[in-house]
Amino acid sequence: MAAQLAAAREDAAAFFTYDQSGDAYRHWDVAIDGRIATVTMNVDPDGGLNPGYKLKLNSYDLGVDMELHDIVQRLRFENPEVGCVVLTSGNDRIFCSGANIYMLGTSSHAWKVNFCKFTNETRNGFEDSSQNGSLKFLAAVNGTCAGGGYEVALACDEILLVDDRASAVSLPEVPLLAVLPGTGGLTRVVDKRKVRRDLADVFCTSEEGVRGRRAKDWGLVDDIAPKGRWTASVREHAEKLAAESQRPSSGAGVKLTPLKRRIDESGYHYEHVDVVFDRARGFVTIMVKAPADAPPSDGDACLAKGVSFWPLAMARELDDAILLLRTNEPDLGLWVLKTEGNCELVAAHDSVLLAYQDHWFVREVIGMLRRTLSRLDVSSRSLYAVIETGSAFAGTLAELAFMADRGYMFELVAEPERSPALQLSPANFGLYPMCNGLSRLQSRYLGDGSRLAELESLIGSPIPSGEAHDLGLVTFAPDDIDWEDEVRLAIDERVKLSPDACTGMEASLRFAGPETVWSKVFGRLSAWQNWIFIRPNAVGEGGALKLFGTGKRADFDKNRV
Amino acid sequence: MAAQLAAAREDAAAFFTYDQSGDAYRHWDVAIDGRIATVTMNVDPDGGLNPGYKLKLNSYDLGVDMELHDIVQRLRFENPEVGCVVLTSGNDRIFCSGANIYMLGTSSHAWKVNFCKFTNETRNGFEDSSQNGSLKFLAAVNGTCAGGGYEVALACDEILLVDDRASAVSLPEVPLLAVLPGTGGLTRVVDKRKVRRDLADVFCTSEEGVRGRRAKDWGLVDDIAPKGRWTASVREHAEKLAAESQRPSSGAGVKLTPLKRRIDESGYHYEHVDVVFDRARGFVTIMVKAPADAPPSDGDACLAKGVSFWPLAMARELDDAILLLRTNEPDLGLWVLKTEGNCELVAAHDSVLLAYQDHWFVREVIGMLRRTLSRLDVSSRSLYAVIETGSAFAGTLAELAFMADRGYMFELVAEPERSPALQLSPANFGLYPMCNGLSRLQSRYLGDGSRLAELESLIGSPIPSGEAHDLGLVTFAPDDIDWEDEVRLAIDERVKLSPDACTGMEASLRFAGPETVWSKVFGRLSAWQNWIFIRPNAVGEGGALKLFGTGKRADFDKNRV
Repeated sequence: MAAQLAAAREDAAAFFTYDQSGDAYRHWDVAIDGRIATVTMNVDPDGGLNPGYKLKLNSYDLGVDMELHDIVQRLRFENPEVGCVVLTSGNDRIFCSGANIYMLGTSSHAWKVNFCKFTNETRNGFEDSSQNGSLKFLAAVNGTCAGGGYEVALACDEILLVDDRASAVSLPEVPLLAVLPGTGGLTRVVDKRKVRRDLADVFCTSEEGVRGRRAKDWGLVDDIAPKGRWTASVREHAEKLAAESQRPSSGAGVKLTPLKRRIDESGYHYEHVDVVFDRARGFVTIMVKAPADAPPSDGDACLAKGVSFWPLAMARELDDAILLLRTNEPDLGLWVLKTEGNCELVAAHDSVLLAYQDHWFVREVIGMLRRTLSRLDVSSRSLYAVIETGSAFAGTLAELAFMADRGYMFELVAEPERSPALQLSPANFGLYPMCNGLSRLQSRYLGDGSRLAELESLIGSPIPSGEAHDLGLVTFAPDDIDWEDEVRLAIDERVKLSPDACTGMEASLRFAGPETVWSKVFGRLSAWQNWIFIRPNAVGEGGALKLFGTGKRADFDKNRV
Repeated sequence: MAAQLAAAREDAAAFFTYDQSGDAYRHWDVAIDGRIATVTMNVDPDGGLNPGYKLKLNSYDLGVDMELHDIVQRLRFENPEVGCVVLTSGNDRIFCSGANIYMLGTSSHAWKVNFCKFTNETRNGFEDSSQNGSLKFLAAVNGTCAGGGYEVALACDEILLVDDRASAVSLPEVPLLAVLPGTGGLTRVVDKRKVRRDLADVFCTSEEGVRGRRAKDWGLVDDIAPKGRWTASVREHAEKLAAESQRPSSGAGVKLTPLKRRIDESGYHYEHVDVVFDRARGFVTIMVKAPADAPPSDGDACLAKGVSFWPLAMARELDDAILLLRTNEPDLGLWVLKTEGNCELVAAHDSVLLAYQDHWFVREVIGMLRRTLSRLDVSSRSLYAVIETGSAFAGTLAELAFMADRGYMFELVAEPERSPALQLSPANFGLYPMCNGLSRLQSRYLGDGSRLAELESLIGSPIPSGEAHDLGLVTFAPDDIDWEDEVRLAIDERVKLSPDACTGMEASLRFAGPETVWSKVFGRLSAWQNWIFIRPNAVGEGGALKLFGTGKRADFDKNRV
């Protein structure tokens, strides 16, 4: 990817965005019928994002997944009446054959890892919606379902498999490609579906996978149905799932209009988010702006605001900025998080979010914030929060300070009124759990539960630098004499460190405490895959990923490490 | 290591064993005073296990750690009166400077990984003893304590740091070497000691570390003491810890005499364990034999048996075999686990272990079994249990079947009396938790708690093949017509897979469910380290690990992956 991206900066056409108009998709059909949206995969073999491979057999690349992500995102906001998404295939033999192997074989290590991370986030997003009263998902597996195809099914609430003596579910990555399933397959098989570990071993080392009754008996799918009862069975399962969703059965949605974004040499510029590169020093500043106005008075008024409702508008912009930076600026390894504006207006928005969290639109906005903050948590970039006079690290925006690897807060002892202050809101106490299931404050004070109660008593009060430091909300609170030097040095020292070592260290320090499927996917599975993705047995000249489709077999170095 | 080991097989002198006589150590002094054993690190710079580096500044290599492992093991069995181990240094400026960097810089990837795994197991063994009523550990950090030196301290119950304005604790791996602390440092800082994650970030990116009062305030050490009060303070902390141990304050121990072991071309041959190589087909058979006699009648009678008490003798041999195989036979990637003998005699031994588990010697024997089984769990080899007529997969030995990635059990429908049977004992229900804190049966039936109750009702009854298969205790139960072909094929297909992909897959499937410090060390931290250990930023010609000590600075590829 380094080469691709170097080229990208010389050639504007190769700059990658995640933009989708939503008007028509190249690889998917979307049909809405009452509470059920049927999303049909029909990949255009000639529609690869990069040249050099054909997307045969309903295989996918990052471009196909960008569309899927957009489809789900639009269903969340534009079609509140939808309670269940049915994922199925327009090819009646093949549900999905997973990530395109020729794409993987020709991609750089970094591209593969970034691709896996985004697809993981899209899959986790299904579960995030399901767990929070929003969309439910049914995988209607009407043909062979392999690798990443099965992984997308695993992320659904239920998997229904056609029982036709031919269609199998499989994770053939280990035997065919000498890599791991890259989007949570191993973890979801044993941790989510609780397939017995020895059966999982057989399954994950089998090229052909498991069909019919056995797939159900092993717990690999929830139900099977013959062709003759297929349509009825899909409908029945989908309706049951739709009934479990808390979304309304009617009402107008909110059109996700294109972001107002300007990209230039200096950075990415949005209405509420501004990203500025410092290429000379190797870091990026991400400035997030507090709302300028008071929030709407209730859930319907928020809905009336639509895409201009500040929490949604800000989250969409921040999410986009993260994706653009990850994909296009891999050598800017440190993101400095800043905020500006009025803390009280952030807190007022939090109050509305909390008071109306059962309103479908507010629920979706909270979900978007939760997923965006999670995307930041798992970004392989160092994160510093820099808290200056005029900042607005309050409530939802204070999560940016709590997620950062370090927080620096300016302290002006002589003029406390010109010192910045942090401000807590109830949103900091559980509205946005991290992928380990804990709030950022819980993760921060794992060893000191009493600190959380103390902090709750401070909700709504400005917390000046000295106190924020004493409470452990920030790492350092330099005064005006030291501030500039200390922040400058901290940045310059960080970008000198090995990017690989920082990634591994941050992945280990950010997610202490309990683990979930999601934290295992990012913390354990991706780490193993990162290793395997650069081993000669997979990607060397004679590696399995390189030789796939040539008819040659990989000749492995047999040594176990 | 491939090259070293290829050489090793040609040159018997380079074959690595973990044997220690216990008579004298090259790098450590052991002094016992009542309930307290003081273990003093005094590394001989010229005592490296391999040529090419000097062990300066109390740095260590695998050989130093083999001695430490032996010391602790002997204290457990030979000195029951010891309740607390004080780890300290004979160098009054340097407690320990960690793993020797020149050793790391000149080692192969495989050697580094194997070294880290063994040192991790030794560290975890401290905690295993402490958590199970056995030895307690105090790190008496009387000088600078860096990297692996701090990691060994982190594994102790308490860390006491001398407050002399010079001595610091540090994890300088990331800034100095561009790798991670390799023996649990990151995980123990945030998960065990619950150091706040932003302070942990500062600490783990600092070359010089943290001293005195700040080390205590951040939670990096438990207490500090000035030089003038050092000896008294160490004594005080050690006595308090010793009082928490459940070991007796007097009594004779059991001398750990050398194992009777014959190594030849065909394998490793012990009294209760036999290891046979099939080099042509690329696998190893590990046969474990059941006891030949009834167990002693009570705890003191077990003690009188000493090293010939079957559970201890068998565990010592199995443990040794695992270590020899890991180190010397990296290209034999599949271990086939077999047993033979009398199930009832195994069950009878289990009964004694359980009935007298509060007897110090029995407690230590159980601990040895628990750690040995754990060593198997985390071995980067595929594990198959093959259960034939005459086998003895009962109770403690049945753990070998439950830990295996797959179990194959012979079924002779026509002659059930010639079919093998599994047998459960209470030992299978919690005596040997895996590193995730669950028993192997709990891990196996994560999704089906009621199955455990059903299995408990079968304790003591022979469970024939068909039933064992239906209960999910084994994966396959082929009959006499299919048996040979099916087992042969299963072996041959496994060894054809990519060793790397198998390692990553097995690490993901074996440890579903909750995570602990230990499972994170093996599942998350080691995976990241595996990756970082082969990245050019660490080990390339210009990598930090290669350039350490040359005065040159690594020139990193800045791309974040």
